[in-house]
Amino acid sequence: MRVPAKLQLHPDRLLPADPSIRAIARSLYESVKALPIISPHGHTDPSWFALNKPFENASDLLIKPDHYVFRMLYSQGITLDQLGIPRADGSHNDVDPQEVWKLFANHYHLFRGTPSRMWLDHVFAEVFGLDIALSQDTAEIYFQHINQQLAKESFRPRALFERFNIEVLATTESPLDSLEHHASILRSDWSGRVITSFRPDPVVDPEFEGFTENLLRLAELTGEDTHNWHGYLAALRQRRAFFKQHGATATDHGHPTALTADLSENEYEVLFSKIISGDFTATEAELFRAQMLTEMASMSVDDGLVMQLHPGVFRNHNQPLFAQFGRDKGADIPLQTEYVYALRPLLNRFGDHPDFSLIIFTLDETSYARELAPLAGHYPCLKLGPAWWFNDSPEGMRRFRQQMTETAGFYNTVGFNDDTRAFLSIPARHDVARRMDCGFLAELVADHRLTETEATELATELSYNLAKKAYRL
Amino acid sequence: MRVPAKLQLHPDRLLPADPSIRAIARSLYESVKALPIISPHGHTDPSWFALNKPFENASDLLIKPDHYVFRMLYSQGITLDQLGIPRADGSHNDVDPQEVWKLFANHYHLFRGTPSRMWLDHVFAEVFGLDIALSQDTAEIYFQHINQQLAKESFRPRALFERFNIEVLATTESPLDSLEHHASILRSDWSGRVITSFRPDPVVDPEFEGFTENLLRLAELTGEDTHNWHGYLAALRQRRAFFKQHGATATDHGHPTALTADLSENEYEVLFSKIISGDFTATEAELFRAQMLTEMASMSVDDGLVMQLHPGVFRNHNQPLFAQFGRDKGADIPLQTEYVYALRPLLNRFGDHPDFSLIIFTLDETSYARELAPLAGHYPCLKLGPAWWFNDSPEGMRRFRQQMTETAGFYNTVGFNDDTRAFLSIPARHDVARRMDCGFLAELVADHRLTETEATELATELSYNLAKKAYRL
Amino acid sequence: MRVPAKLQLHPDRLLPADPSIRAIARSLYESVKALPIISPHGHTDPSWFALNKPFENASDLLIKPDHYVFRMLYSQGITLDQLGIPRADGSHNDVDPQEVWKLFANHYHLFRGTPSRMWLDHVFAEVFGLDIALSQDTAEIYFQHINQQLAKESFRPRALFERFNIEVLATTESPLDSLEHHASILRSDWSGRVITSFRPDPVVDPEFEGFTENLLRLAELTGEDTHNWHGYLAALRQRRAFFKQHGATATDHGHPTALTADLSENEYEVLFSKIISGDFTATEAELFRAQMLTEMASMSVDDGLVMQLHPGVFRNHNQPLFAQFGRDKGADIPLQTEYVYALRPLLNRFGDHPDFSLIIFTLDETSYARELAPLAGHYPCLKLGPAWWFNDSPEGMRRFRQQMTETAGFYNTVGFNDDTRAFLSIPARHDVARRMDCGFLAELVADHRLTETEATELATELSYNLAKKAYRL
Repeated sequence: MRVPAKLQLHPDRLLPADPSIRAIARSLYESVKALPIISPHGHTDPSWFALNKPFENASDLLIKPDHYVFRMLYSQGITLDQLGIPRADGSHNDVDPQEVWKLFANHYHLFRGTPSRMWLDHVFAEVFGLDIALSQDTAEIYFQHINQQLAKESFRPRALFERFNIEVLATTESPLDSLEHHASILRSDWSGRVITSFRPDPVVDPEFEGFTENLLRLAELTGEDTHNWHGYLAALRQRRAFFKQHGATATDHGHPTALTADLSENEYEVLFSKIISGDFTATEAELFRAQMLTEMASMSVDDGLVMQLHPGVFRNHNQPLFAQFGRDKGADIPLQTEYVYALRPLLNRFGDHPDFSLIIFTLDETSYARELAPLAGHYPCLKLGPAWWFNDSPEGMRRFRQQMTETAGFYNTVGFNDDTRAFLSIPARHDVARRMDCGFLAELVADHRLTETEATELATELSYNLAKKAYRL
Repeated sequence: MRVPAKLQLHPDRLLPADPSIRAIARSLYESVKALPIISPHGHTDPSWFALNKPFENASDLLIKPDHYVFRMLYSQGITLDQLGIPRADGSHNDVDPQEVWKLFANHYHLFRGTPSRMWLDHVFAEVFGLDIALSQDTAEIYFQHINQQLAKESFRPRALFERFNIEVLATTESPLDSLEHHASILRSDWSGRVITSFRPDPVVDPEFEGFTENLLRLAELTGEDTHNWHGYLAALRQRRAFFKQHGATATDHGHPTALTADLSENEYEVLFSKIISGDFTATEAELFRAQMLTEMASMSVDDGLVMQLHPGVFRNHNQPLFAQFGRDKGADIPLQTEYVYALRPLLNRFGDHPDFSLIIFTLDETSYARELAPLAGHYPCLKLGPAWWFNDSPEGMRRFRQQMTETAGFYNTVGFNDDTRAFLSIPARHDVARRMDCGFLAELVADHRLTETEATELATELSYNLAKKAYRL
Repeated sequence: MRVPAKLQLHPDRLLPADPSIRAIARSLYESVKALPIISPHGHTDPSWFALNKPFENASDLLIKPDHYVFRMLYSQGITLDQLGIPRADGSHNDVDPQEVWKLFANHYHLFRGTPSRMWLDHVFAEVFGLDIALSQDTAEIYFQHINQQLAKESFRPRALFERFNIEVLATTESPLDSLEHHASILRSDWSGRVITSFRPDPVVDPEFEGFTENLLRLAELTGEDTHNWHGYLAALRQRRAFFKQHGATATDHGHPTALTADLSENEYEVLFSKIISGDFTATEAELFRAQMLTEMASMSVDDGLVMQLHPGVFRNHNQPLFAQFGRDKGADIPLQTEYVYALRPLLNRFGDHPDFSLIIFTLDETSYARELAPLAGHYPCLKLGPAWWFNDSPEGMRRFRQQMTETAGFYNTVGFNDDTRAFLSIPARHDVARRMDCGFLAELVADHRLTETEATELATELSYNLAKKAYRL
């Protein structure tokens, strides 16, 4: 067996290579690296923190649930069955987790140059204390070592939450969720702050799987008649209040486009009837979603929940794979997304309202400088969410700052979201964002666009303050 | 009171940070920094130079007319009433200019990382000789100092024009303008060259406010029957000649899209009748604008005026704000803009004509490398205007050169436009452009894509010669 | 006469300027600079290698056939007649090749900052051994020197092929081509590997010039009834087999859009009849091309030819010039190109097939990070072709790696294509690609995203291995 390569996280990683800029960046980074983590948007499982059970093993924790990881393996010919990913019908190929881990290790070179590689190495080194690089040769050592660690008390979810220095962590739930785990955390003597966010897609998108049943369930939960538009809106208001009681400070909306509408009551009522009847066109479904964004904005004005909009993804692009394995299997592909016409109905209604706050995300970077920065640099309600999903990467973050800052400034942005279900990678992701922001600020200092004093202040804003303020935490 | 931070314009600002590249850039910049300013496209008020009255005060000069400045304040919750911006009905909130200045100073941090911040600091330091940074603490000192300076003879418009070393300054006027101030400057014994440009939007865009009245006024001015298409075109030709007499060397066209058309005489006549009747669709209005671009190109072939096209903005996006405060309140948002199909009718008619020159601008950077550079790298008539509006910034300029140069070369570009109504910022803006261009050239020298001799020659081309040549000045 | 400037290819050209990064890049480049050239996609003339006749003269070799060169001259007012470019009717302006060369030399400054300049200087210095820069003063020396060299045995095509260290060179032919030159090379005792690629546009695009005649010729060549869809597809299969016998490992498809379709047999038969009748709409032509991509994919699954798709160009944009001079005169302009919806029918049919390989190119860089990297980072069949045509340039290549790598990784890319008909520039082009890739890798090493060991391995992958593997060479 070859001597395995070392695994070392270089203290200057991701900082600009030029020595004078790096020195500035290093000093900025030193000032923010230990700040608590504000994680206002993500997809971790609240049951982890409610039940505090140990995680199973390396493969079940780090590979099978992470579509960043298995999409890359799939793109190079490894099947989901080989990885033991569950099928849509609940069955799954019975494969030894250690074999899955080996397959992953043998193909770890595929991740070179990707953020997954950086996050994973950070988890290996910082969370698990490994100091040799993952490869075919070290796969077994890794698998055993990680599993041993996971069995320890100090690797249970709550212990890791504290070790990660997380000040607040938001999860995301459907309006139909009982929020039992959040309630349980609130009732417990554990001081960790794990809050929910209100994600109404299953009950406001007529094309969502099970929409009809979802409305029935919404009626049951609220005692409202959800087949009547007054009752439907009242039910949503009630669930928003319920979410607020469980800590929510924000809503989240994942739509195919950014289209909003501002229909008259009468138009809305007619449209609602068609949607409820189940007999509607794709255009009517789109219009309904558009109108519901404006309805949600209206409710946000009332209840103070910050509104987040994530548009522009073609979900489940690979139809045969979807039929076999269901959602979230790495086949979601970004689409070109228009914001100027799309957002206007909502913005003309609530854009100048002092109590309304709307955070916009995009996967279409062409809108950064052209549409989103000019919109956010004008409308009081608008803030720009960080580089999202495929763009949550060093080069993606750099493009975000380079293309947004000159028109929107720093103060119309909201800090970082990790947006992840990969709990162990949260510190890694925030660390990457802090490093990239400090590098960007250092460049502005190096060519005299900012003073060092200003950059130091901004480093804390971007790493901590802006997120707290924008999400009203 | 705290000791205020210093305001220092670093001599190397905006030059690349790498020492070897910076040395090259510095030497290139030294060779061009003192060249006279050619300002072939802008929006200063000719009455300043005709009447040569002193400017009022810091707020009325630097904040209230500058939508770059108040849009950012507005985006963070400061109302236009708080700034005393006039309303559409002519009224305005009566607010002390000193209070406006303080409000601005208290929020000056919002501009960190924006070009406005650089331009303003340049004005403060270079025009007004201030050496402490603007902040809450220094707001009053600033306000008084600037006002004192503005009262001096040496701060009147003509004196500043000379101090700024402006060789020629173009303003922009409607065909309905009397050009009295330009005439007055021409008649005066002052040697400053302030010329007009022909901006026909109010009489060629059927959706422009007051279009019907504008055509009547055009008839009055020219003695032509503008309700007959022959008369209408003759009237435009007459006004173009009048503008030429007042120094114009160029026309300027601000359209929602880049669409051009090449209708037959008969089609044009039918369309013209509909437009004149006032009973037309949005599509017909768009087609009329499209055809008018080609008509204007035809007139340019005859009279030699260089044609400029600035498409792709959704004007007055914020309807409630527009209703209250009118145009130009920071709510103009760029749109995706298509050039390949859109320009073809015009280009197939005049694109190869040796006497025709068309300068294209865009707010949609996605068209730089994909559409505009390939078009300009082929058609003899086409030149690329500089990074425009939201892109008139260090990062925007860098992207312009990086994305345009390899396909269009340097010689299909036209140097810099400041495009501003903020007269005092003109030297700052040209200085930023010269620095960024020298930095870009220095990078090409540093990785041996250009020799230093070539780069030195190009620095002068980009800073001075190309603008003179392209605008026939 | 002035002392002419020196022509020197700096050994560090195109490598990052920062000394620490440059040192890494230089070491990476040293490890790959001498690797053989794999040229899997290009447009050289196979008769050169079959007949091995000397090239004529500098102008006929380097200017007249190179639309990169004459488009730039044309954009600055030099007519194609002045350059002696043949007209569509076969005539041409009789101009002395030496005069053409002088005209080119007098305007060589136009190419500053363009890749053409780099490629040409590389050819002048490395292929012809010139050590003074091209200019008005040296035009004559250049013309005579180059012509003298071209007359030598060592400058014949086969000798240059060997000197260039080309391991394999693919040309591109129509299905109607006899492939006589490839056959002749195969029969010869020369060991150079010059293979063909199958480019079926003339017989699958109903809007291609001469489509009807092309189908008749296809029938003659194959003995199939090409007016019957079974016969038509059988004829195509037969020609693919014929191309495979002549070395082809790939097909190439140049379509206006990336649209694919997956019609039922019945729908296809009806559409085919309309197409054959000649009475079809533009939409039907587009649908037919879309369906034919899927048919070609199906044949690739069977015969193993790798499929390449190059969509998104408006060909012959300048209609008057096209009428006079025909195709390929520098007036092809990229278009915005959509991939997510467009490719779905084909991908849902064959995207997960282990034997299918599809290489996608684009001229629309906005699709890099948004659409193509996510698609290639998921579908097993998909690989990303290198930065193409206008983007085959230092900045274009940098953007390609920066925008593709984080989502698709390196292993879903296929190395470099020179895609050229300018045979002498092939080493220059591969050298530029190797330098830019090594520079990119060096940056990842310098900020600790990759180890040097990994970067060294990747340098060879990008310069040599990936192309061989992707094209099954």
